[in-house]
Amino acid sequence: MRLTFIGSGNVATHMAAAFKNAGHRIVQVYSPNMHNAALLAYHVGAAATNQLNEISSETDIFIISVKDDAIAQIAEALAVHQKLIVHTSGSTSLDVLLDYTNNAGVLYPLQTFSKTREVDFLTVPLCIEAANDSIYADIKELAAAVSNSIYSINSAGRKILHLAAVFACNFPNYLYGVARQLLAGYDIDFNLLRPLILETAQKVQQQLPASVQTGPAVRNDQTTMAAHLQMLEGQPHLQAMYTLLSQGIIKNNNGEHEDK
Amino acid sequence: MRLTFIGSGNVATHMAAAFKNAGHRIVQVYSPNMHNAALLAYHVGAAATNQLNEISSETDIFIISVKDDAIAQIAEALAVHQKLIVHTSGSTSLDVLLDYTNNAGVLYPLQTFSKTREVDFLTVPLCIEAANDSIYADIKELAAAVSNSIYSINSAGRKILHLAAVFACNFPNYLYGVARQLLAGYDIDFNLLRPLILETAQKVQQQLPASVQTGPAVRNDQTTMAAHLQMLEGQPHLQAMYTLLSQGIIKNNNGEHEDK
Repeated sequence: MRLTFIGSGNVATHMAAAFKNAGHRIVQVYSPNMHNAALLAYHVGAAATNQLNEISSETDIFIISVKDDAIAQIAEALAVHQKLIVHTSGSTSLDVLLDYTNNAGVLYPLQTFSKTREVDFLTVPLCIEAANDSIYADIKELAAAVSNSIYSINSAGRKILHLAAVFACNFPNYLYGVARQLLAGYDIDFNLLRPLILETAQKVQQQLPASVQTGPAVRNDQTTMAAHLQMLEGQPHLQAMYTLLSQGIIKNNNGEHEDK
Repeated sequence: MRLTFIGSGNVATHMAAAFKNAGHRIVQVYSPNMHNAALLAYHVGAAATNQLNEISSETDIFIISVKDDAIAQIAEALAVHQKLIVHTSGSTSLDVLLDYTNNAGVLYPLQTFSKTREVDFLTVPLCIEAANDSIYADIKELAAAVSNSIYSINSAGRKILHLAAVFACNFPNYLYGVARQLLAGYDIDFNLLRPLILETAQKVQQQLPASVQTGPAVRNDQTTMAAHLQMLEGQPHLQAMYTLLSQGIIKNNNGEHEDK
């Protein structure tokens, strides 16, 4: 299949490479920033452009991977080509494309991508939604070429997945950084925490989070929690966070949530 | 060396197994709960007791791995044997042992242990503190038999490490559970998030957390954050958490913290 990528960010970069490696042809990359368009285009053997009106009709699928609030405007511009248009956004409804074409779908990769880091795309869950069954089958075939993990998820499900991903990825990564800052104040190497961070994530690959919760809050160890809050004196933002997260763990443990 | 374990919880279980595998002899396991003492003793070929006054002097090191507030009382009871006494607690000062004996040290394993899960002990950072250089050398030799990652950390450093571990392990694990709950409400499989959780932890094994932060907050994407808060309507605890954690990410990104 011939694919055109609209966007050259983290998602577009990893997805374009995965599709090229699977034998598809990336014909063109568009980005308003010509340098970024050219860089990704170079890596996947495509043409580059920074002009919307230079995007070619000689393709099978347009894959839009840009900021959420730019998707509608791009879809409007591409509809004239009468090809399948797919976006990759977690928090954008399929309706945003359907406003301009019925030949539309979504291919949302549920992973955190950085340009500087390789990802095994075969393990990346790909969430598909489409305007009809025939388009769904086409997108599924495309997705199956690069991932072993394909899910049918509608726009409402995708939105909750995106929110859940913020809790499962963006917030934990922030907390890793808080831990690093705390150690930096005592000149202690962040390396000490790295095995712990990895093991914490590995544990929940087979087990449920609540069943492997450790630490003072799940033991309701009030002495240690009070000592920790005292160590955070002068950092009210971290104190508030410590209290709120600990309360959540205690509530879970008391069966007030259903995550058991 | 002959080792006696006081306690039979997660840390004692993993540590005793590691020392036994490294060729040391576990002579006795004490726990107030005889069933737990016998279970661990069986696994490491030791005798079991639930009576403090039945703990034998025929050992080289007592390793105390019990709840923090029980350490002092146990140390007092063991001091009569005039052997090296070591505790494994992150948040307990060495002084708690020094009140009863000068033959004392700390061996703190910085990892999250669950009885149901194997851990590669060679990668577990072991933090050592001792009453003097000679004891430090003895504990270091013992530690080096089971781990490649040995650090000299005093009581103040260990306390901050323990606090940092709460942020790097206990709180992220709680947030994994929140994500699972959010998906459960829509009947979406937690398996979709597992690769994301693992990749998030793997990313910071080589890189710094702030340099690989992704998500709406680091992009200062106010539209998505507002939509997420709306999806959390009726869950004020999660809304407060979302706001506090997002504010932290935004502040970091604006250079208001030093984690760059």
